[in-house]
Amino acid sequence: MSKARTGNFFEDFSVGQHLRHATPRTVTSGDVSLYTALYGNRFAVQSSDEFARSLGYATAPVDDLLAFHIVFGKTVPDISLNAVANLGYAECRFLAPVYPGDTLTARSEVIGVRETSKRDAGVLYVRSEGYNQRHETVLSFARWVMVRKRDAAQPAPDPVIPVLAACVPPDTLASAVPAFDTPTYDRGLAGSDDLWASYDVGERIDHIDGMTIEDAEHQLATRLYQNTAKVHFNQHAQKADRFGRRLVYGGHVISMARAISFNGFANGFHIAAINGGRHVAPCFAGDTVYAWSEILERTEIPERDDVGALRLRTIATKDRPCTDYPGKTGDDYDDGVVLDLDYWVVMPK
Amino acid sequence: MSKARTGNFFEDFSVGQHLRHATPRTVTSGDVSLYTALYGNRFAVQSSDEFARSLGYATAPVDDLLAFHIVFGKTVPDISLNAVANLGYAECRFLAPVYPGDTLTARSEVIGVRETSKRDAGVLYVRSEGYNQRHETVLSFARWVMVRKRDAAQPAPDPVIPVLAACVPPDTLASAVPAFDTPTYDRGLAGSDDLWASYDVGERIDHIDGMTIEDAEHQLATRLYQNTAKVHFNQHAQKADRFGRRLVYGGHVISMARAISFNGFANGFHIAAINGGRHVAPCFAGDTVYAWSEILERTEIPERDDVGALRLRTIATKDRPCTDYPGKTGDDYDDGVVLDLDYWVVMPK
Amino acid sequence: MSKARTGNFFEDFSVGQHLRHATPRTVTSGDVSLYTALYGNRFAVQSSDEFARSLGYATAPVDDLLAFHIVFGKTVPDISLNAVANLGYAECRFLAPVYPGDTLTARSEVIGVRETSKRDAGVLYVRSEGYNQRHETVLSFARWVMVRKRDAAQPAPDPVIPVLAACVPPDTLASAVPAFDTPTYDRGLAGSDDLWASYDVGERIDHIDGMTIEDAEHQLATRLYQNTAKVHFNQHAQKADRFGRRLVYGGHVISMARAISFNGFANGFHIAAINGGRHVAPCFAGDTVYAWSEILERTEIPERDDVGALRLRTIATKDRPCTDYPGKTGDDYDDGVVLDLDYWVVMPK
Repeated sequence: MSKARTGNFFEDFSVGQHLRHATPRTVTSGDVSLYTALYGNRFAVQSSDEFARSLGYATAPVDDLLAFHIVFGKTVPDISLNAVANLGYAECRFLAPVYPGDTLTARSEVIGVRETSKRDAGVLYVRSEGYNQRHETVLSFARWVMVRKRDAAQPAPDPVIPVLAACVPPDTLASAVPAFDTPTYDRGLAGSDDLWASYDVGERIDHIDGMTIEDAEHQLATRLYQNTAKVHFNQHAQKADRFGRRLVYGGHVISMARAISFNGFANGFHIAAINGGRHVAPCFAGDTVYAWSEILERTEIPERDDVGALRLRTIATKDRPCTDYPGKTGDDYDDGVVLDLDYWVVMPK
Repeated sequence: MSKARTGNFFEDFSVGQHLRHATPRTVTSGDVSLYTALYGNRFAVQSSDEFARSLGYATAPVDDLLAFHIVFGKTVPDISLNAVANLGYAECRFLAPVYPGDTLTARSEVIGVRETSKRDAGVLYVRSEGYNQRHETVLSFARWVMVRKRDAAQPAPDPVIPVLAACVPPDTLASAVPAFDTPTYDRGLAGSDDLWASYDVGERIDHIDGMTIEDAEHQLATRLYQNTAKVHFNQHAQKADRFGRRLVYGGHVISMARAISFNGFANGFHIAAINGGRHVAPCFAGDTVYAWSEILERTEIPERDDVGALRLRTIATKDRPCTDYPGKTGDDYDDGVVLDLDYWVVMPK
Repeated sequence: MSKARTGNFFEDFSVGQHLRHATPRTVTSGDVSLYTALYGNRFAVQSSDEFARSLGYATAPVDDLLAFHIVFGKTVPDISLNAVANLGYAECRFLAPVYPGDTLTARSEVIGVRETSKRDAGVLYVRSEGYNQRHETVLSFARWVMVRKRDAAQPAPDPVIPVLAACVPPDTLASAVPAFDTPTYDRGLAGSDDLWASYDVGERIDHIDGMTIEDAEHQLATRLYQNTAKVHFNQHAQKADRFGRRLVYGGHVISMARAISFNGFANGFHIAAINGGRHVAPCFAGDTVYAWSEILERTEIPERDDVGALRLRTIATKDRPCTDYPGKTGDDYDDGVVLDLDYWVVMPK
């Protein structure tokens, strides 16, 4: 058997199976600089050690999505190298700040399997967790992917479909945020006077700006995350694919939408949880990504006077400004929609 | 009113107004690596902690232009988001070294306003300053930009046009350079035997090398500086613009010219001041930038035996080598010229 | 004489000549992040401070090839600015780990010269060494390049052709690897159960994955290494060249092949030596690089119970998967081959 791995197939997984993923990764200020260069983030907490320390952080934590992408990347060689499609996320929680110098590792547990009716593939449900060097869980998420079978004739296990929450409950949303004195929070430096209380449920915000993707950029990003999914890097193979081009890692688009949403949520410095997300259409180099958001819920966080939570739905589009808030009409997404993300951000009160 | 900001318009400014810009920024060695990767700088002081320490620096300071771009970037959302054009710079002084770990913030003061004759825009003059976490001013510059009015019918304030020096005087030029023992300066490691005294006023130097710009590169650079000017990032919107393409941030071209000028000024490790600069023509991806320089002045710096100053004019071109020193003939620039920069560098004696 | 240097020509070199190269360089975690983003390396030792410390390293060492490229880059302005071709490498040894914070300098000695029969150029042989700030030699290599003469009529020195080893002997191969307790080595985190003993001489491994090169990527890489060879950066000049395009730095392709070879050699975390290498064909933006390897030798390292050495031949191709192990037939390389590299990796026993 060759020493070069070709990844697991659907029949290699069983419910309850634990996977310990390779390549521990020390996150550094170099990763933070690259992340800034890739997306142009401007949240003060992640940008300034001084600002972060004034709120009780040890130093500026890394962007929540940078930590997510790194942990996600580790799961790819074991979970999704033979994936046909990434189908969904749920119960993604950011539980502790990640600082430059922290070393992340990742493990996953298989929580569900369901063969498709054509029997050549199956839906795999896993819960993945990222840990720091003190064995603290820094983030946790469930995802489901459709994975090819090595051999369609192989029998499949009985289906197990896990129950996943449609929305992460508010009580654990601020575990990664130190308790801070609200008056020390400098809205001028943060870039907006709009704090938690000023957002209304149902309010819509067009984030205005568009950013065009280049192949070099998404490749740099995806390799930075040590994500090995083949479709992002190999034009020679992709030209035979139905799209004829390299696909942009979906997480790259999430990070673009998040960075663009700074203009509207400048004080929403922390993603506390991702309730669910759908990559409605693939992105390619040359596409220009825009985004708008709607406030789905505004809630207090138990035992926290300093911060509250906003549940947001952020829609990203390509080559279509969001002045008219494109979204979903019935079961169909409007033209140009590429991402539909449901998540919680934490914001000072 | 939407929570997504669309920037200030000309009638939002008044002389004497102070603006405190958002997003404090801790500069790191990651930023330095990216800066090196973007431009290929080779000045020993900025490249080596050991070399810098041998001269009295705490460690290698970051490139002066990296600090400039970061401070400049902070001013964009408040000053120039609705700019029609960046018209000029003056009195830009680099006053203290910036080290990895320092956190930069920026403020500006409006020092002049003048409505245009068409009354749909005005020229705004601001002085912007960058500070470190000890509240020391690390750099200061004046710039003027043409900014659209929200409403052409609005009355404009009386014009105030500030008096700005054509040239920064030599006496403050070395405040960011520690006093050092000249014999400890290692010209071999610096890359040239040509020190301050060997340059003659009127001497011209072709810096020879050309560097081709890629969209991914100038986008990474401009986002690293957290500069939010829309024209650099959005191909979808730019294709309707007169150029049909994303414009390269002018500061990116300045940094390219500076890096190229190492071949001729290897010992000119510090930009002490920028007297003025003009972006003669825009640059786009695919353009190859060349540069040449002329020595305008060579001057002692009061109370400094170790270093002197050279006033340089660096001309950058695109798709045109500088063997014949293209410049300005009468009021017109020669074909291919993109930048005309007048600045002081400090060099060991 | 202009202060802008045009590099040395063949007649400027003589056997025994020592060259001290410019621009000392402090390597940082920012460089490491960029290296990861450029190639997607996943070796646990270089990726995780925790993993590296568990083996006795002070912290995660930087990738061997990153150190190589930085030292190599320093030699370019003095050695190969007027090179017609890079002809070969030999006796490249990685002698000590390089850590973020270390400052690298480089020196070279001319060890051979031989004028070509056409008398307009000559083959120059140099041995170059890289040092850290404690004056320890961290790497050493010989290379030979064909360098243009300034004046074909100039007399040439008598030819001196150095004797260079076809293969670095095993006894010094692990000087950069701390002695470690083999049981502490975590194969799960490293990504493979295949240790030194499981590889057989003659075994071939297709590394499967392909990576497409972008101009922005190889330019960022080559500038990060402060390598000033003109052919990599200047499309305006290159369009008149026989290829019409910017050439990718050969070292970029070596780093790509090395990163791709992780899938097959996940435990081969250290390149101990490069015995020789040939850039069979140039690479350009748009090319997709694949790689496969053959085990040439498997040897013990004297006085080391913890690690052994594998001598590998890695062949990289462009736009050709390596499922059929393309290589050399007689004197001719198969279509698509771009690199033929002979080197030693160290692997736990």
